Amino acid sequence: MNTISIIKKKRDGKALTKEEINYLITSYSHKQIPDYQFSAFLMASFLKGMNKRETSALTKAMLYSGKVIDLSEIPGKKIDKHSTGGVGDKTSLILAPIVAAAGINVPMISGRGLGHSGGTLDKLESIPGFKTNLNLKQYKNVIKKSKAVLIGQTKDIAPADKLIYSLRDVTATVESIPLITASIMSKKLAEGIDGLVLDVKTGSGAFMKKMNDAKALAESLMNTAKSFNKEVIAFITDMNQPLGNYIGNWLEVYESVKVLQGEEVKDLYEVTVNLSGAMIYLGKKAKSIKEGIEISGEMIKSGKAFDKFLEIVELQNGDTSYLRNLKKYPKAKYKEVVIANKSGFVEKLDNYQIGMASLELGAGRKTKEDKIDPTAGIIFYPKIGTKIKKNDVIAELFSNKKEGIDLAKKMINNSIKLSNTKVNQAKLIKKIIK
Amino acid sequence: MNTISIIKKKRDGKALTKEEINYLITSYSHKQIPDYQFSAFLMASFLKGMNKRETSALTKAMLYSGKVIDLSEIPGKKIDKHSTGGVGDKTSLILAPIVAAAGINVPMISGRGLGHSGGTLDKLESIPGFKTNLNLKQYKNVIKKSKAVLIGQTKDIAPADKLIYSLRDVTATVESIPLITASIMSKKLAEGIDGLVLDVKTGSGAFMKKMNDAKALAESLMNTAKSFNKEVIAFITDMNQPLGNYIGNWLEVYESVKVLQGEEVKDLYEVTVNLSGAMIYLGKKAKSIKEGIEISGEMIKSGKAFDKFLEIVELQNGDTSYLRNLKKYPKAKYKEVVIANKSGFVEKLDNYQIGMASLELGAGRKTKEDKIDPTAGIIFYPKIGTKIKKNDVIAELFSNKKEGIDLAKKMINNSIKLSNTKVNQAKLIKKIIK
Repeated sequence: MNTISIIKKKRDGKALTKEEINYLITSYSHKQIPDYQFSAFLMASFLKGMNKRETSALTKAMLYSGKVIDLSEIPGKKIDKHSTGGVGDKTSLILAPIVAAAGINVPMISGRGLGHSGGTLDKLESIPGFKTNLNLKQYKNVIKKSKAVLIGQTKDIAPADKLIYSLRDVTATVESIPLITASIMSKKLAEGIDGLVLDVKTGSGAFMKKMNDAKALAESLMNTAKSFNKEVIAFITDMNQPLGNYIGNWLEVYESVKVLQGEEVKDLYEVTVNLSGAMIYLGKKAKSIKEGIEISGEMIKSGKAFDKFLEIVELQNGDTSYLRNLKKYPKAKYKEVVIANKSGFVEKLDNYQIGMASLELGAGRKTKEDKIDPTAGIIFYPKIGTKIKKNDVIAELFSNKKEGIDLAKKMINNSIKLSNTKVNQAKLIKKIIK
Repeated sequence: MNTISIIKKKRDGKALTKEEINYLITSYSHKQIPDYQFSAFLMASFLKGMNKRETSALTKAMLYSGKVIDLSEIPGKKIDKHSTGGVGDKTSLILAPIVAAAGINVPMISGRGLGHSGGTLDKLESIPGFKTNLNLKQYKNVIKKSKAVLIGQTKDIAPADKLIYSLRDVTATVESIPLITASIMSKKLAEGIDGLVLDVKTGSGAFMKKMNDAKALAESLMNTAKSFNKEVIAFITDMNQPLGNYIGNWLEVYESVKVLQGEEVKDLYEVTVNLSGAMIYLGKKAKSIKEGIEISGEMIKSGKAFDKFLEIVELQNGDTSYLRNLKKYPKAKYKEVVIANKSGFVEKLDNYQIGMASLELGAGRKTKEDKIDPTAGIIFYPKIGTKIKKNDVIAELFSNKKEGIDLAKKMINNSIKLSNTKVNQAKLIKKIIK
């Protein structure tokens, strides 16, 4: 195999064979292809695309660059969910205990916050003592005992993805559907799952701003999952506004606990039980997504889901006293409110700006080295369609550093576009693809 | 300036500003941008192209990465020629003395052989003693004395081009019109010229196989030359067969001397005097290309051109006794003939294969480290349209190593496609663009 000829082939828009793709990924993983050739390949792939077969081969090569976890010793279906990320997206924290309480294994390997978008691992780690870096044996033990586990990527899982992602990040080759697909699916397929529910977000706070791009990504992810004989359902959901009202790490744990305890947070609840409903359906504990949604509601009402959450947290070394008594959690040093400077109906929200404002407060990382402040974040009240009156409190900001607050306030104010006439609410579940 | 944003801009098909291009080239030259980012930029430029303004800015940035020679102290016009290269293309050796004999300065910086295509420097170095690595002072002195000089690229001339070309070579980003344009023009503009004649080859032995690509390259080169206020004329000439009959380094010097001495080599003569005619016209010593062609003929007939060649060779330390007495030159150890295995009219020649056959004999380099055998090469007789009889000698092969000869023979035989019916001769000068 000749690296230059393979780059040339992709550059000229031809489809690569699975042998060629495998050669590239294997050689690059073993440092037998230099970065400068691989980045030329990435740019050619970005601009010329990859067909279904190539995307599947790329996923496979990246998947087998590392360990594929075998969970066959554990009885029952193993179903996971993947979200493309957004602002206030805390569904994993709620649905993992729901689905596990309904009798399905949920082996979940999650990521950290990236730019404006939060990460499940960072949120969980705001619970004192919670360990996300379990080894394979511990990972299996937690699933065996509680049916759900929430950990971070280990170095054994799809190491090629880590290498390739770092290079994409600095060569302007991130936003490519086949490359995103292989990155997501190589990690998810390593978990040992039977099925996967996808939550592809679209809107101002999502990576895929446009519906058509979200649809294309959802289809590419589904095609790849199917080529590995995994059952899969994809949701395209709205990310034009934060999901729920709480943004930030402990703040999102807090809101998740509230939902698990039965408090009504309409949009967050709707998206969560749709996803958990589909997981329960794929896990063969419901005959339809609808029945799965009903079961999800019962798991919350009966308290089983919250109990399951406490069980998982305990098994992963977390201190559940903070969850049982939410007031016990330390408060951020500074708290300020944002006041509406005029009246009107919320027409549009710049959800990306809202996410970036939470970063200014310390809830995310600007550089890889930044430490996250678990208490920092925003409680954001307005939803699209809401009527706001001048001097209403529209948001509360929490931070341990004074510097970011003024900027965050300004960003929050700028993120809201008001209209004089009534505005319809946004549709949350935009599409379900089976 | 942010490297990733600039790559992204080009990736998305937008035109870069001259500041952005300058930043990229300057930073890359100073090793402030890593190879892997620059190769992503190269692939994006390859696939998305560059407009006239960008190509000119790229050329300028590469030109000023090094020294621009100032020849203003030397009276008279300075005119050079550039050819995109081919098989048996020895016109530089003949036209430089013709044009200098006609009273115009020819400051010529040439390259080495590349793949199937020969290089002027390698040919000149087959003359014992000939020095192509003159310093700037020597360069100017030779022009002052003989009006022509033929040297190789120094490390002061467009060093960014050398860096970028090495990277293009291994990242499948060679065949891009804006990148080729900037590479050629940054070196040519550094010579201190007033005008340039371009010989863009097209056909099976050229880098641009197709007429349309050759035209596009010619236009891009012309636009760039004009943006630097240089006078320029482009020829698109045929490279579907070797130019002249001799291929190889000393063999091409030999044939050039023969032409300078008045021997008739029809195709080689026609292309050479068209190019030299245009150079004489640009040098204001003729009122038209036609008159320049007539003057070129006179320079040969009068012996002035050959005398000029001897003068240049002597000034560059070459031993002219080999040129005065061509038989004195050492012979290759092995000489074999290729015999026609059937009769017919020559319909098509795979000129690339013919060039590669000369490489097998030792006339070129397979890797950068290979040493060239100056005596190796091919005398190739058939021309498109020629009638061949079975058992005719169609070629003579010369080499100092036995191993390559059988393969070269086979390649020569395979390169010829015969027809039973009469075939028209190829048109040599396909287009002149002023």
